[in-house]
Amino acid sequence: MNTQELVKQYQEWELKLSAYTLALSTMGFDSRTIAPTNGSAYRNKRNAYLVGEYFSIVNDENILEVMKQLSTKEDLDEKTKRAINYRLADIAKINCIPKEEYVKYDELASISYDKWYEAKHNNDYALFEPYLKETILTKKRFLEYRNKNNALYNLALDDYEIGMTMEEYDEFFSLIKEKLVPLIHQISQKQDEVDTSFFNQKFDIEKQRIFMNQMMNYLGFTKDWGYLSESEHPFTSGFSINDVRITTRYIEDNLISSIFSIIHEIGHATYNHQIDERFDGTYLVDNITSGLHESQSRLFENYLGRSDAFWDNNYQTLQNLFPEQLKDVTQEMFVRAINASCPSLIRTEADELTYPIHIYIRYEMEKAIMDGSMTLEQLNEKWKDLYEENLGIRPDTDTDGILQDVHWSDGSFGYFPTYALGSAYAAQFYQAMRKDIDVDDCLRNNNFNAIKLWLKEHIHKDGGLLTPKEVLLRATNEPFNPNYYIDYLTNKYKKLYNID
Amino acid sequence: MNTQELVKQYQEWELKLSAYTLALSTMGFDSRTIAPTNGSAYRNKRNAYLVGEYFSIVNDENILEVMKQLSTKEDLDEKTKRAINYRLADIAKINCIPKEEYVKYDELASISYDKWYEAKHNNDYALFEPYLKETILTKKRFLEYRNKNNALYNLALDDYEIGMTMEEYDEFFSLIKEKLVPLIHQISQKQDEVDTSFFNQKFDIEKQRIFMNQMMNYLGFTKDWGYLSESEHPFTSGFSINDVRITTRYIEDNLISSIFSIIHEIGHATYNHQIDERFDGTYLVDNITSGLHESQSRLFENYLGRSDAFWDNNYQTLQNLFPEQLKDVTQEMFVRAINASCPSLIRTEADELTYPIHIYIRYEMEKAIMDGSMTLEQLNEKWKDLYEENLGIRPDTDTDGILQDVHWSDGSFGYFPTYALGSAYAAQFYQAMRKDIDVDDCLRNNNFNAIKLWLKEHIHKDGGLLTPKEVLLRATNEPFNPNYYIDYLTNKYKKLYNID
Repeated sequence: MNTQELVKQYQEWELKLSAYTLALSTMGFDSRTIAPTNGSAYRNKRNAYLVGEYFSIVNDENILEVMKQLSTKEDLDEKTKRAINYRLADIAKINCIPKEEYVKYDELASISYDKWYEAKHNNDYALFEPYLKETILTKKRFLEYRNKNNALYNLALDDYEIGMTMEEYDEFFSLIKEKLVPLIHQISQKQDEVDTSFFNQKFDIEKQRIFMNQMMNYLGFTKDWGYLSESEHPFTSGFSINDVRITTRYIEDNLISSIFSIIHEIGHATYNHQIDERFDGTYLVDNITSGLHESQSRLFENYLGRSDAFWDNNYQTLQNLFPEQLKDVTQEMFVRAINASCPSLIRTEADELTYPIHIYIRYEMEKAIMDGSMTLEQLNEKWKDLYEENLGIRPDTDTDGILQDVHWSDGSFGYFPTYALGSAYAAQFYQAMRKDIDVDDCLRNNNFNAIKLWLKEHIHKDGGLLTPKEVLLRATNEPFNPNYYIDYLTNKYKKLYNID
Repeated sequence: MNTQELVKQYQEWELKLSAYTLALSTMGFDSRTIAPTNGSAYRNKRNAYLVGEYFSIVNDENILEVMKQLSTKEDLDEKTKRAINYRLADIAKINCIPKEEYVKYDELASISYDKWYEAKHNNDYALFEPYLKETILTKKRFLEYRNKNNALYNLALDDYEIGMTMEEYDEFFSLIKEKLVPLIHQISQKQDEVDTSFFNQKFDIEKQRIFMNQMMNYLGFTKDWGYLSESEHPFTSGFSINDVRITTRYIEDNLISSIFSIIHEIGHATYNHQIDERFDGTYLVDNITSGLHESQSRLFENYLGRSDAFWDNNYQTLQNLFPEQLKDVTQEMFVRAINASCPSLIRTEADELTYPIHIYIRYEMEKAIMDGSMTLEQLNEKWKDLYEENLGIRPDTDTDGILQDVHWSDGSFGYFPTYALGSAYAAQFYQAMRKDIDVDDCLRNNNFNAIKLWLKEHIHKDGGLLTPKEVLLRATNEPFNPNYYIDYLTNKYKKLYNID
């Protein structure tokens, strides 16, 4: 068959696949936001059926052959060729696993998740331990199926961030540990410098919602392409380029939790929304790496959302909504408070400075899990030791320790490191963007659109067409350089805590 | 194959079909409530793809053969046999239409809907007229394909209410016209009897929402199986027996619009929820006729929701939420006002007494459309004449006249009459229920559950297993008798308007 005919077949298959993806996205979003609890058994059974249909479509032998032929065609445009090669690489990761083992693993992941949830809520690691063990063993076996003389953990790292290896992460995390841990210790002795006491009040949720509406408008997250819902854990779900959903959770005695979770998710959402429309429904939307995606959510949340310029435009609105609670709080006091740093046990509640240390700890744990240098029985103690060693605090409970994150319950080893990496990418993007446009001026003068345009042009528009290394080079004119991140954090926090 | 093997194949096919149905229900509900507008083209294309998959599954020749064999098996249980026979009858209605014509009609319905919408908003019937004409011609041709020496409109009527014919409806509507039109004319001269002026105020939507939460709780529409959303037009969507969604629309200067739309939809929702769980995902859920379903929504909305006993339990809550607006309004005044009757042009806003006349008018129109006794050019004038003749008012605009309802845009001829029929069924059910339990006492003393239990036992539990005629006989010990409806309306409205 000629290229044109093959492309036609490929595109028909892509439409079919995207229809099932949209159905599953819609059902997933629905069940995590509004679906009545008692309907879950009925829904799950039908959802599983459609997942089965989806997998049959993905693993269709005919289309695999079409893709293989296409990948060798010289007259195929570069973008489609890349999309096909990414897809073939991902299918190869699954194809080497015997189908029955794959299905069994899917069941294990469901049970393992339930057990993790139960264990976390009962503060009992022993409940989860056997399932974690089984998950680890299965995951390692799967990685071995496709091992090409590579360390298992390198394969896992590459799954979430194309091209990343332990060698590069080791270097990255050494630098973080070396430069940030001493600063964190210094700051933990100077907690009086930043007052956060005014956060310990009640903030009416209905008024929080009103603020969010205004802030979403400011950030250009509008109803024509976006929708905000509520769920237990905040997340973003891109249905298509012009339909991106985010969620948050409102907490009456925590004003800033929902504010920063929404800014964070809008960072993700804006990435999806600003991809070239020609890529809608193709693999170039799905293929964005975790690190790149996280770089945009972190850029929004921390580099932009925690800046003085951002609040220059938004603080008055917030203060007007909460005149009682914020009457004695100046904008300066507020901005200092939202940037306060203090060692804590829970990753998702950690501040910008201590956050990468939480990730470093998980990275060390995962390395040891994957190379077998630590037995499963040692995991819990090791977790506690690493927290004590790096953040100076030791969890008293499993709930506040090894059970806090969901990721290991479904075997997502290799995912955590991208959170810190994304933050570091963001520092480099932020620096480059400031060379081209006056970011603070845009934030102060209600011109967020100029920031979005820069991001679209330099990062978003190509979706997952380029690798993270290529995106960094194109957007910043240099390879990945973690010193932007280290410098940003060091300067910001030394100034905030009055450290020379 | 033996019965057991055939049943197994049938059930596997039912699971598959119900998975696609759930996906389409979820996507449909999403797009009518929260979905961002700009994503509609992407969604519609994929939705259409999945509708195509759905139709292929429904029209699978193999399963048709399985069903035909099963329908002759003597060792098949009665319930499954009924479900299969209903399904076969419905498939036969579609199977006789050439596939290309069917697909073309589906496209026509989409365009026709858009044109109707445009025409309604521009008050211009001429915009819609050619599409209505095409829709009517196609619908008539489709009915002719399966004509078994029966009048076309009888086939259409049977599609929405099994077993109903023009002969029966003629008798029903003659009685309504004869008994109610004079009363309506009398009441239109006595409008001073009931004061509704206090409704002409603003009622904060946030407070309306608070009232709805309490009322939903009172009606047993709880979060474990139900969910209330918002949409342009209120509707109910049953995802499964333990997952039923309803919607409403809040209007600041119309307090009772959302109250009664919610009670109405909860009537539909409760029917779906109280079907025997063994029927979940089978055709016995889908097969409930329009008239029977409407009987439950009307029973809730009018017979229960507009009663003094209902408000004995709920009025204080409403008054507390709107102390300014309702301070001089006693419960008696409020209950009189929500039952006020006055001839009006718009069906969906009509009161209980004039409502069946709106339906009668549409029934007469549809009969004439179907038997060709009226040309399309005459439709608009005929509409106006019928309103003048029966309700004493003549629409000035097409928007308030022939364009007000969506139903004809997709060819749903035969649907309207079930609205009036459902109201009449409800009167008969209501009478029977009052013989068994003290309905007013249940309503007054926050014991709605006793009412739900009666409805479950006598009507809901079997879903669409029985025909309307069988359900009426079982629940009320007599065949359909429209005099319960006439008597209920006559007594209620003579008393309210002080007429001898």
